[in-house]
Amino acid sequence: MSNYKILGKGIPRIDTPQKATGDALYTADIKLPNMLVGKVLHSPLAHAKILNIDVSKAKKVPGVKAVITRDDTFGEKWGVFKYTRDHQLIASDKVRFIGEEVAAVAAVDEETALEALDLIKVDYEPLPAVFDAEEAMKDGAPLIHEDHPNNINIHVKIDVGDVDKAFEKAYLVREDKFTSKDEGYGMLEPYAVIAYYHSDGSIEIWMPNASPHTKAKALSNLLHIPLNKVIVRRPTIGGAFGGRSDIFPLDFITSLLSIKARRPVKVVYTREESMICTRQVHSMVMYAKTGVTKDGKILAQDIKVIMDGGAYSSTGPIAASVPFLVWEETYKLENVRLNSYRVYTNKPIRGMYRCHGRAFLGGLGMQLDMIAEELGIDPVEIRLRNALNPGDMQATKSKIYSCGLKEAIKKAAEKIEWDKKRGKLPFGRGVGIGANGMMCGFPMGIRGGSSCFVKFNEDGYPTIISGVIDNGQGNYHAMVQIASEVLGVPPEEIHIVAGDTEVTTLDVGAYSQAAVLVSGNAVKKACEDAKAQILKLASEMLNCSEDELDIENKIVFSKKDKSKQVPLHKVIRKGLIENRHVMGRGHYMPEVSNDREWVKNPVGQQATTFSFGANAVEVEVDTNTGEVKIINAVGFHDCGFPINIKGVQGQYEGSIASGGVGSTLKEEHIFKDGKVLNADFLEYKIPTSLDVPENVYADAVITNDPKGPFGAKEAGLFGSMNSFQAIANAIYDAVGVWIKDFPITPDKILKALEEKRLKDEG
Amino acid sequence: MSNYKILGKGIPRIDTPQKATGDALYTADIKLPNMLVGKVLHSPLAHAKILNIDVSKAKKVPGVKAVITRDDTFGEKWGVFKYTRDHQLIASDKVRFIGEEVAAVAAVDEETALEALDLIKVDYEPLPAVFDAEEAMKDGAPLIHEDHPNNINIHVKIDVGDVDKAFEKAYLVREDKFTSKDEGYGMLEPYAVIAYYHSDGSIEIWMPNASPHTKAKALSNLLHIPLNKVIVRRPTIGGAFGGRSDIFPLDFITSLLSIKARRPVKVVYTREESMICTRQVHSMVMYAKTGVTKDGKILAQDIKVIMDGGAYSSTGPIAASVPFLVWEETYKLENVRLNSYRVYTNKPIRGMYRCHGRAFLGGLGMQLDMIAEELGIDPVEIRLRNALNPGDMQATKSKIYSCGLKEAIKKAAEKIEWDKKRGKLPFGRGVGIGANGMMCGFPMGIRGGSSCFVKFNEDGYPTIISGVIDNGQGNYHAMVQIASEVLGVPPEEIHIVAGDTEVTTLDVGAYSQAAVLVSGNAVKKACEDAKAQILKLASEMLNCSEDELDIENKIVFSKKDKSKQVPLHKVIRKGLIENRHVMGRGHYMPEVSNDREWVKNPVGQQATTFSFGANAVEVEVDTNTGEVKIINAVGFHDCGFPINIKGVQGQYEGSIASGGVGSTLKEEHIFKDGKVLNADFLEYKIPTSLDVPENVYADAVITNDPKGPFGAKEAGLFGSMNSFQAIANAIYDAVGVWIKDFPITPDKILKALEEKRLKDEG
Repeated sequence: MSNYKILGKGIPRIDTPQKATGDALYTADIKLPNMLVGKVLHSPLAHAKILNIDVSKAKKVPGVKAVITRDDTFGEKWGVFKYTRDHQLIASDKVRFIGEEVAAVAAVDEETALEALDLIKVDYEPLPAVFDAEEAMKDGAPLIHEDHPNNINIHVKIDVGDVDKAFEKAYLVREDKFTSKDEGYGMLEPYAVIAYYHSDGSIEIWMPNASPHTKAKALSNLLHIPLNKVIVRRPTIGGAFGGRSDIFPLDFITSLLSIKARRPVKVVYTREESMICTRQVHSMVMYAKTGVTKDGKILAQDIKVIMDGGAYSSTGPIAASVPFLVWEETYKLENVRLNSYRVYTNKPIRGMYRCHGRAFLGGLGMQLDMIAEELGIDPVEIRLRNALNPGDMQATKSKIYSCGLKEAIKKAAEKIEWDKKRGKLPFGRGVGIGANGMMCGFPMGIRGGSSCFVKFNEDGYPTIISGVIDNGQGNYHAMVQIASEVLGVPPEEIHIVAGDTEVTTLDVGAYSQAAVLVSGNAVKKACEDAKAQILKLASEMLNCSEDELDIENKIVFSKKDKSKQVPLHKVIRKGLIENRHVMGRGHYMPEVSNDREWVKNPVGQQATTFSFGANAVEVEVDTNTGEVKIINAVGFHDCGFPINIKGVQGQYEGSIASGGVGSTLKEEHIFKDGKVLNADFLEYKIPTSLDVPENVYADAVITNDPKGPFGAKEAGLFGSMNSFQAIANAIYDAVGVWIKDFPITPDKILKALEEKRLKDEG
Repeated sequence: MSNYKILGKGIPRIDTPQKATGDALYTADIKLPNMLVGKVLHSPLAHAKILNIDVSKAKKVPGVKAVITRDDTFGEKWGVFKYTRDHQLIASDKVRFIGEEVAAVAAVDEETALEALDLIKVDYEPLPAVFDAEEAMKDGAPLIHEDHPNNINIHVKIDVGDVDKAFEKAYLVREDKFTSKDEGYGMLEPYAVIAYYHSDGSIEIWMPNASPHTKAKALSNLLHIPLNKVIVRRPTIGGAFGGRSDIFPLDFITSLLSIKARRPVKVVYTREESMICTRQVHSMVMYAKTGVTKDGKILAQDIKVIMDGGAYSSTGPIAASVPFLVWEETYKLENVRLNSYRVYTNKPIRGMYRCHGRAFLGGLGMQLDMIAEELGIDPVEIRLRNALNPGDMQATKSKIYSCGLKEAIKKAAEKIEWDKKRGKLPFGRGVGIGANGMMCGFPMGIRGGSSCFVKFNEDGYPTIISGVIDNGQGNYHAMVQIASEVLGVPPEEIHIVAGDTEVTTLDVGAYSQAAVLVSGNAVKKACEDAKAQILKLASEMLNCSEDELDIENKIVFSKKDKSKQVPLHKVIRKGLIENRHVMGRGHYMPEVSNDREWVKNPVGQQATTFSFGANAVEVEVDTNTGEVKIINAVGFHDCGFPINIKGVQGQYEGSIASGGVGSTLKEEHIFKDGKVLNADFLEYKIPTSLDVPENVYADAVITNDPKGPFGAKEAGLFGSMNSFQAIANAIYDAVGVWIKDFPITPDKILKALEEKRLKDEG
């Protein structure tokens, strides 16, 4: 595969033993001396003015150490951009959804905290509420934030080329509407926060998260504590999926409780609280009008999107444009228009999630198949005809440096035996394909980069210190493998200190597919810096030039004369004694247009580089029950170069379960008047091991990206995003019905089959 | 005092709030999930063969999770030098003192652990024991380590010049014997260890210590775990005084318990265990023969020392030469001989302590007064005549770079009103003076240096990451002040991460007076490195040369034109965005002769530089009770330049209490057949606040050392070491008796007064 020493091979992950033995400590597992238990009072109303909060009785309960409300804040609000700061993280003037945090108590035990919670009296004046995004946009709908007319949180507008003129030239124009319902994240680890305020003015905080430095920055702003005193620690994390990438009310509330009580406080959210009070996934309505040439080339596209954002902006301003960005990363779009609205409703807050792909990418991928059918073109072929190539420029002007999209599509088709099966399987069986591009890192200004320190102990074993975080996807292992390749030290002998904001420098976080590209490049640079110091010292010991030296298995040796060698620890010791101690440092800032607009006509490089993937599935539809079973799933991912092929394969396996079975076929939050009726794992169905397809095959497409560390790009997200269209398209191939509303549940299939039967019978 | 912005001023320490509020967590305070309680079985015999250890019954007690004995070790032994590794840290073939660790249990609670401990059956074969060092050296004494004839652990031999010939030329020769009894350390924090072994093969460990990297190195050797997986964490530490500078059996035992139980284990030693099973202070017999010229110049000196080392070497090989090193750092010694024996006895292990000054430095300082009296020279004058000068070379060839010894002596004399009081106060009152030099850092090879990383958050607040440790003396604050001076950031806005071996690089530790010189220089270098990066970036923003820029209060400004300025955080942000993130690093290795011998005729630079101090006291002796009260204590310390004058003064105040009142007048361990009879604070008398002199005055003598950071040198130890001689000499001035055996307790004074009375009466 390559002549790397360590990279590309499938190596068991360094963090496997802890997870397998139960040794790993998640936030809820952590105990601190004198720790209090915190509990939060949530709003029972979807929309109401708060007239009064009376905590006097709660405070008097013996064992209660702190009660906090809106009166305990600096009044700062939070949002990812300065102009979207709409959330005070504890209700002030109004409550805006059922579950919103209104007050909190810290006490010596859970019973005492709950008793005190019951004694907090909140006087509300109920207000009319709205629970549907399109309803909320209508004139006269109840205003959730008074300064946002028609409840429009964000309106992203993109207009490239001349869309209307291009439609005129089109051979075929299709208009479709696709929708996706409210969805949850289904992290197995419930949300939990521990905060520990110290008398030197510093605060330590533990919580599952996708970017400790983002948490720290938000808390620094909200609590008026400088960043070097906001210490976000690194627990083991049980999943993030985009949904743990910004600040949550509980982070702030637990901090306030600890500051007030002057003791550590732990709050572990119940499953219900975790599902309602952290983040949910946007539901979406998408109207897609697409014009193509006779041979299936996309000429014009006009897309309107309405995303239900819930009560506050959260990461919404980004979420509103991301689905489009992914789409333009995949296909050549010369004339394209997007109007994307993120709309406030009186529902829980919605956050980033897998590029919000169900209705948008799933829908556009289905529409491509529909167009192909009308034109008599094979779905694989239409994708190949529109797919981007290396060197191409995207609609909003991002250059593609490496691109294995076509190779991925072809290989997926071949592996699933497309030509043998498409349209040729018995009724009830079908195959479908999906393809996507994916950005590696966003323009996030100073917050988009990463740094790394490397230190050596005198026995020659290194430690890498990086702000990168791992939510389960294998980032720590990837960093160690990169360090291993550079330093010539076996992965198991490298220690990594990651995430902890006290000792690591600013890192973008494990979202927008940045970890391997951004944090990985920083680790690589720091290790190269250390290696140069090592080779310089060794060249003096071996009387030769640094250029002829390399390191393998902790031995520095001459590539010209292998008998010339010295153990690494002796080189380190020489550096120590001679006042030239080996200390590596490296910083990487992605090559993006940091002044690129997010909301109005963005132009410029939106990511350093892009990965690509294709995904083909074979499904079996039970026409009696409407149940869909995935028989085969194959994925080919242009991840540039796989740091650890097992990691790439593991990501695809997880994606097929979570994005394929879960998001595409099952997952949906049921609401009644703004109340989530299934905020638990009994009623909210995530796939279990029994639901996962037995035959899953994944491999890498290698393009050796010029920007990635050792040619590597993102390797995680494609499997989910492609599943929506691949499965929907396979269902059509199997039983001839299009389900345009996600999730594609059995009832919808049965209903469509019935409608089809009635129509066919004429 | 200087034109420094931050240095030299008296600033409250950054760690004061935590200690004042009780927020600081000592090891015993720390709680971990699933933590077990450990208990240790100690030997009841002073010397015995172990025939058998039966743990079968203990293992069966429900709730017992691990039982360990000699069978659970790799058989590695520990000692500070390779050739002094005599201690397996859990008894193997023999026990060698009452209290030696024989087995240990980890269980779910203390009661269960104690119950199991009772069920461990150890069969001993008692052996004859020896409890006196001079007895132990005699032929035929029981051998404690079979390979050490006459129980001699270490024999340090120094012979400079021609001692015998010089004695022939002497005008006066005196021979005296001085002794000091067994002493404890009296740290208020009992010894405690928490160990937490993880399934990735790493181990976290917490304990009070004076050098986390030394602990890590020892545990790495003993447990066969690489250094980057031996993570010594940083708790708050309640004192070290030299006695927590190497590895203890409990460190190793707790680690073994955790490795075996696969759970975290905490062992908190009782006061008795803390006193007996960690370290004690060497008792000493010193024979000093000194020849002087008529005008009091030391011509020749022949010193023989016998130190009772207890059962194992510990830091003994160093301890055996240190008192002499301090002596040669103080006075010109052209012809001098030392024979220093550290001898094994069946007593608890003895470690480093304040240069072991009672009998040695106290004794030589008393003998100097005796000689002065015989020659009719004033004690102040005889010190001035013999004191070293800047540029001088010591006996074993260390160069003196800066030296304020004479100034310190003169100022102390002046401040105590020497000329008005010496010999002129009423009977029962007297004044005395003492003076000493002090090495700053030892030659310790690669372990003698320190490194530092500096990172910046985007708000412009820095964090310094240093291996330095603080046992209470103020090292963290000193580092922050140094960083503050370089970086132009107020001390309270700088965060320090220190000690933790996972994230910091090798550091010498807080002993041999290294912290300010060694760790401080590393911090300074790292901050200077960061500052250079900052000024480069700022020069581009302000269109001027880097040379004209400086930083104050987080503003970078032109010294030529103060209107040219930019806030530090903007400079940091520019670095981030331009891929030139400010990351400072620095390493400092002291300028010493790293090949200097420790045991046989050491020659070469023994420390980078030396500090000096003088100490004068006025005492009142109650001739009815024998009680000594210190009326006034004044100290002048050539610490080069005081980083924080309050810190220097605080060290002196503590020294007068601990070294002056405690070591000189009170503290002594009472033994019976190898058993410590007073291993508690009821019977072992340390001074309380009521015993501390009311009038204490301390100030710095400024010599701006060329090697120290901002001219600074050691600032802690002189007050104790000088107290022994100053107080003993003051007692002589007050009541005319010499007490040559420390501590100088009331009974000894009364007995001496009685003898004097009888003698005077003829």
